[in-house]
Amino acid sequence: MRLTGKQTWVFQHKLFVNKTATVVGPKEAKGPLKETFDAHFDDMYCGAPSWELAERNLMEQAISRCLKKAELKEEDIDLFLAGDLLNQNATSNYTARMLNIPLLCMYGACSTSMETVAAACALIDGGFANKIIAATSSHYGAAEKQFRHPTNFGGQKPETATTTVTGAGAVLISKDESEIAITAATIGKVIDVGRKNPYDMGSAMAPAAADTIKQHFRDLNRTPSDYDLILTGDLSGVGSPKLKELLLEDGYDIRGNHSDCGLLIFHPAQRAFAGGSGCACSAVVTYGHIFQEMKKGNLKRVLMVATGALLSKTMIKLNESIPAIAHGVVFERQR
Amino acid sequence: MRLTGKQTWVFQHKLFVNKTATVVGPKEAKGPLKETFDAHFDDMYCGAPSWELAERNLMEQAISRCLKKAELKEEDIDLFLAGDLLNQNATSNYTARMLNIPLLCMYGACSTSMETVAAACALIDGGFANKIIAATSSHYGAAEKQFRHPTNFGGQKPETATTTVTGAGAVLISKDESEIAITAATIGKVIDVGRKNPYDMGSAMAPAAADTIKQHFRDLNRTPSDYDLILTGDLSGVGSPKLKELLLEDGYDIRGNHSDCGLLIFHPAQRAFAGGSGCACSAVVTYGHIFQEMKKGNLKRVLMVATGALLSKTMIKLNESIPAIAHGVVFERQR
Repeated sequence: MRLTGKQTWVFQHKLFVNKTATVVGPKEAKGPLKETFDAHFDDMYCGAPSWELAERNLMEQAISRCLKKAELKEEDIDLFLAGDLLNQNATSNYTARMLNIPLLCMYGACSTSMETVAAACALIDGGFANKIIAATSSHYGAAEKQFRHPTNFGGQKPETATTTVTGAGAVLISKDESEIAITAATIGKVIDVGRKNPYDMGSAMAPAAADTIKQHFRDLNRTPSDYDLILTGDLSGVGSPKLKELLLEDGYDIRGNHSDCGLLIFHPAQRAFAGGSGCACSAVVTYGHIFQEMKKGNLKRVLMVATGALLSKTMIKLNESIPAIAHGVVFERQR
Repeated sequence: MRLTGKQTWVFQHKLFVNKTATVVGPKEAKGPLKETFDAHFDDMYCGAPSWELAERNLMEQAISRCLKKAELKEEDIDLFLAGDLLNQNATSNYTARMLNIPLLCMYGACSTSMETVAAACALIDGGFANKIIAATSSHYGAAEKQFRHPTNFGGQKPETATTTVTGAGAVLISKDESEIAITAATIGKVIDVGRKNPYDMGSAMAPAAADTIKQHFRDLNRTPSDYDLILTGDLSGVGSPKLKELLLEDGYDIRGNHSDCGLLIFHPAQRAFAGGSGCACSAVVTYGHIFQEMKKGNLKRVLMVATGALLSKTMIKLNESIPAIAHGVVFERQR
């Protein structure tokens, strides 16, 4: 049985991150992690006539670069697991029509990166596929237009707002050995603490992240000190302190080894409000910067918890609150 | 290795459909399958103030009825796999916040029923869960409003249009023996033949269904005669003949043993245009009528292929065509 405790999968085979590719927009390419991305576009259109098609270019580029690095063709990949923020996961589905690879499309909002990685690992571990590419994307302009107001509306935002990352990340996973192994995953529950402000996702997501992290520790009988880094996806300046508080209340102190992709991706001077968010935030930071740090030997064991605010404009109009979910995956440096 | 051929999973453990529950709206409850559903609502609001919240009531009822039939509590279920047609899978995510069960949310449009069943089987077969509930839903009013025009707009429709089924279906899967086993699944690719008419999903989906069915036969070295029934989700009056033609061109004759859930759920006199569609269509027909016929001994081996038109209003506005996908699952009567 790979199910360990209540919500955690421990993989029986050694599973590895073989190759990754990250492609970002202009703002991300000027941020502190600029050297860590594989490619960037100089403007938000990314060579396309609309934000939505720009996002597709980002995902297509991420996948083709990932395949190229691995010296593989589409036919070598058994399965494509993807999801994004556009309604009906349009980026993933329309990207998949260009690929000759079977698709399982998933939706976990900004938790999609680790949702797809966890599912990919389970399917390879169980013998349902040899090689899987997991990918996710988001685009600032497309997300603002769909979830809040078009950017040219020019509305003011509170400091609790986050900035959707424009980018896409792809990761190739298989049993072929590499420096970074994937050893376990914890699947989250949907937690809703009654937050209704679409300009404050951090407060809605922190309790979901806390729930998944606590369950992860319990299921594996681990503590924060078992990890060099406990990384969250996009809690940013508002959610990150809340997560640390919530965990401390339960006796888990992650103050010394917690970081958040949303806080890493932009300089404070870049005016990104509380930090980065979006499906691409956790993907491009983890598949780029974090894995590079692991390869350098600066990090040995990382728990990456991708956090998703399951925000729906329709539900906000119906005066509903914003549920959230978080999925965690354990990455370990080999040798 | 459970991956057989290119796209088909053959499960190593015996996996079973333990319990199901189906809840539908008023139109479905007056159709030819009215006796096969577990419950229905007499009006489209299903006790809620909006179409979207009505859909949530349908899914919540389906899950609570499924649990009740199985004499299980939420805590007994390891994982909830769900998806629906609302933007951001709002029905699934908001239903999950009421359930104390980890969630993997998936999006395959109307192929979601078999996408979630296939994934559930893989996860149980691989030892990642013991008991999984898979659920999906759709609502005519909510779907028309989101994908086309609000129903009170009163727009005319061509005869190629389908009628989104109002309903929800839930299925409990585990290794606990029952009359209906699940033995294999074929994961589909996204196929886009350039159709752009949101009032003709059948033509967009038939090639995707044909692709998955052909691959299924090749992967398992089977022919149509190996099945008592090759059932599709919602190709309806337009897509169903196209599928038969497409397969015949490749030497597979399914004319004698093909049926479509969209053609089974409404009487022609019910003015449902080309037939039923929507995530709930394949779910309520398969989990109700088809499984009941299998239990009676009228069907021994069924290939259920859920078909999804990956329609996005945003992409239609950008003059993009409609991609489609289909996932197949093999159900077999035991004894």
